Amino acid sequence: MSLPHHFLLPQFNDRTDEYGGSLENRARLIRELLEETHEEVGDTCAVAFRFAVDEMQGIDGMQAHEEGRAVVEMLAELPDLWDVNVSDWANDSATTRFQPNDGYQTPYIEFVKQVTTKPVVAVGRLTSPDMMLSLVKRGVVDFIGAARPSIADPFLPQKIQQGRIDEIRECIGCNICVSSDNLGIPIRCTQNPTIGEEWRRGWHPENIAAKGKEEQALVIGAGPAGLECTMQLAKRGYQVTLAEAGKELGGRVPREAGLLGLGAWKRVTDHRIYDLQQRANVQIFKESNLTADDVIELGIPNVFIATGAGWRRDGVGRSTRQPIEIHSDMTILTPDDIMAGQSLKGTVLIYDDDQIYIGGVLAEHLAHAGHKVIFATPASMVSPWTENTLEQPRIQKNLIERSVDIHTGATLKTVDKSGCDLACIYTQQPRHIACDSVIMVTERTRHTDLFDALKVSKTSFQTLELIGDAASPGLIADAVYAGHMAARNFEEDPEKVAQQMFRREIVSLQNQ
Amino acid sequence: MSLPHHFLLPQFNDRTDEYGGSLENRARLIRELLEETHEEVGDTCAVAFRFAVDEMQGIDGMQAHEEGRAVVEMLAELPDLWDVNVSDWANDSATTRFQPNDGYQTPYIEFVKQVTTKPVVAVGRLTSPDMMLSLVKRGVVDFIGAARPSIADPFLPQKIQQGRIDEIRECIGCNICVSSDNLGIPIRCTQNPTIGEEWRRGWHPENIAAKGKEEQALVIGAGPAGLECTMQLAKRGYQVTLAEAGKELGGRVPREAGLLGLGAWKRVTDHRIYDLQQRANVQIFKESNLTADDVIELGIPNVFIATGAGWRRDGVGRSTRQPIEIHSDMTILTPDDIMAGQSLKGTVLIYDDDQIYIGGVLAEHLAHAGHKVIFATPASMVSPWTENTLEQPRIQKNLIERSVDIHTGATLKTVDKSGCDLACIYTQQPRHIACDSVIMVTERTRHTDLFDALKVSKTSFQTLELIGDAASPGLIADAVYAGHMAARNFEEDPEKVAQQMFRREIVSLQNQ
Repeated sequence: MSLPHHFLLPQFNDRTDEYGGSLENRARLIRELLEETHEEVGDTCAVAFRFAVDEMQGIDGMQAHEEGRAVVEMLAELPDLWDVNVSDWANDSATTRFQPNDGYQTPYIEFVKQVTTKPVVAVGRLTSPDMMLSLVKRGVVDFIGAARPSIADPFLPQKIQQGRIDEIRECIGCNICVSSDNLGIPIRCTQNPTIGEEWRRGWHPENIAAKGKEEQALVIGAGPAGLECTMQLAKRGYQVTLAEAGKELGGRVPREAGLLGLGAWKRVTDHRIYDLQQRANVQIFKESNLTADDVIELGIPNVFIATGAGWRRDGVGRSTRQPIEIHSDMTILTPDDIMAGQSLKGTVLIYDDDQIYIGGVLAEHLAHAGHKVIFATPASMVSPWTENTLEQPRIQKNLIERSVDIHTGATLKTVDKSGCDLACIYTQQPRHIACDSVIMVTERTRHTDLFDALKVSKTSFQTLELIGDAASPGLIADAVYAGHMAARNFEEDPEKVAQQMFRREIVSLQNQ
Repeated sequence: MSLPHHFLLPQFNDRTDEYGGSLENRARLIRELLEETHEEVGDTCAVAFRFAVDEMQGIDGMQAHEEGRAVVEMLAELPDLWDVNVSDWANDSATTRFQPNDGYQTPYIEFVKQVTTKPVVAVGRLTSPDMMLSLVKRGVVDFIGAARPSIADPFLPQKIQQGRIDEIRECIGCNICVSSDNLGIPIRCTQNPTIGEEWRRGWHPENIAAKGKEEQALVIGAGPAGLECTMQLAKRGYQVTLAEAGKELGGRVPREAGLLGLGAWKRVTDHRIYDLQQRANVQIFKESNLTADDVIELGIPNVFIATGAGWRRDGVGRSTRQPIEIHSDMTILTPDDIMAGQSLKGTVLIYDDDQIYIGGVLAEHLAHAGHKVIFATPASMVSPWTENTLEQPRIQKNLIERSVDIHTGATLKTVDKSGCDLACIYTQQPRHIACDSVIMVTERTRHTDLFDALKVSKTSFQTLELIGDAASPGLIADAVYAGHMAARNFEEDPEKVAQQMFRREIVSLQNQ
């Protein structure tokens, strides 16, 4: 919230001079800022005003149908462009997990065009060209604002203009971009691995270098890393064979997208599968579980292995480095089992020592499906990493409201046949929690058997590269990035690639 | 923990090659790193090896009397300098609050010199020259390692050498320096306001520009900001009058230092009061509660007002912007009341919406004094800010062990005559907690009455400046910094000062 907005709110503004009291007084600073900015810039540029018409906290904040509207009415003709939205950031940049509808800000901002003749722009994870057109045609806005959708696809406007709708890399609304901001690291995007690498690595979101010479490549595993690697290699013009052990393409993506709230994540694979279907230089084989001998027999000299990772069930995770004692009578499951559709009986205890998102997702998914769920974690809150994606309070709220029994600050010590022994992270004080099954959400192990076998085989490959979760388990965004990088760097001068890695902004301690 | 240390620990190292298994194998990487570094640097420089001999987690980590010793024995003559300590960082950089003794690492590292002929250096918040001398004389170490003590006083070695022991600005062990690291901001130190400003503002830790011309200054308020401002103005050669309303110098410092664990913080004022006692150009008046008329009558043209801030009792804080409903029959106290020695009866509920350190300190202080304490906070843990000073787990552990009843994720809504109505931060679900008194640890209001009165008076001052908590309530380190800056900038060209503020590292997007 900016200082001028603080002035607007009676909750913050307790001034008794001409900048406090009535709304006119509280809006005076904004009026003066706009007027003086106009004076200063003259005809050289337009002055836009970004204003959150609603804070989505009822009478405790700005409300669109109360002073939010009054402010727009009062300053109606003063900005050259009204840029209106809702706040705080978690409301403005809602994820698909908690706000599946794009254009979700429309009900709050649609009054604006009725009270000003100036053009209006608004946002709300607008990814659908039909929705965009309808908003303009219905007179809700004059311009479409799209930050996250443009991060996922910087060529979104051009693709719409050229009618290449199917080629749009649609934002999945996961807020990995937002998490980069919150973590103070270069921006990443699940859909667009080139974002933030335009300068350092010289990656263009649409263009990639054509092949240097004819080469064949084999990609094993059609998860996010394998699909992206295949797609980019194919774009470069190579002959690519993609082999997937399962019946379905996408790896963890369709599995995770089957969980409550994550449906939109499927766009990651939909986009890539559609793209691959257009290409003549790609052969895709499903239910093709290749052994090392199969790979050798195929004789393709360049092999990229994206065999993924699997959740472990021995209790080893962020807080526990050695397998814990588990009674053989207790049912131990992993997220992989749940995503594969394994049924559950009685009370389930989810032990989340991963602390990213999947533990909280499973808890809500299973509670929603009618299971009695207990959630235990060494963290002080459910899914602490999701503070970075602005989702944490929504997650914990939903779990509480779905009667999930939450135990924070608790490490899993042992599992007996009737339940779990937890220990307080501060004092080691034990508590026993009865349950009928335990889902271990702790850590993933890399699937490297095929890679290891090929590495020690007598056959030497031109390229033998492990990518994605099989190399380093991470976010889906990380897997897409790894697949993209492998394809970009293929046939590239290793010296140049190594230099890219360390290319950075040079800091000089000159005086200004 | 570094990668070589990971190799050492059987908890992490599951290799089956010559780098896993026996300790000799697990230490192989370190041995090779040392050998190859020696080869690479030749005679051009010495090779030091920093090794944490104990992780202070029993059999779950390295132990000084087990493999910690064995590693030193095995590699005894390989490094040119053994730099030994304990880990993790919270143990290595323990605060005075939880580890009042300097040299606290000695019991862990004292074996090292017995098993190597190479010189040994160790740390442990070594601030006392006597302790340093004794460690060397007793053959525990050859060199004294002092990071935090050198941050507090970069001229520590010189002052010892010159016998200026009383002039040492002794580290108070508060870990504000560590918090800067954890927050990714320029380093700050409670004792040494110049640290991190040597380049940007050109501040030297010992030297300050002499006065430009004869000037008189009045400093009102002898808290950390007022004392530092007075000391630096006096060093510059001005005639300074310091007026303190209370009986004691130091403001909040001696008050907070009277709380359990914070005793060492008193060094902040001890150092400055000692310094002022050596100076002929400073006059100090205690119990001198100046009114605006008094100040005007004194006729000193340069006035610095450091009147501090006081804890509010109306419930307004981080989570609540409007005063809450409080029944007049309930006893409402603030940290100021407790520090002033007000007695308590029955069960006390501490409501911590400040979330920095004082709430947790009061809880432990009062529980230690035998009170029944309930601790409620909207945060997900006790004193979350103290994660930055590496103290949080220790604080919460102590509260639990002292039977403090902790309610996290709870906002205070109303206070009735029998207790408090709290609401869940996620769901707003209410719960009533019975208590006999409430300590509001929510927010401080600035004491600006004197400044406000002087500002509107007919007398015009050459300088009339509000500094420290009275300008902006913060940490003690912030108050010291503000006092220092006011003294540095006095008589300085405002243009130059303004430029300093924006002087920064220039980032250029050149290729390397």
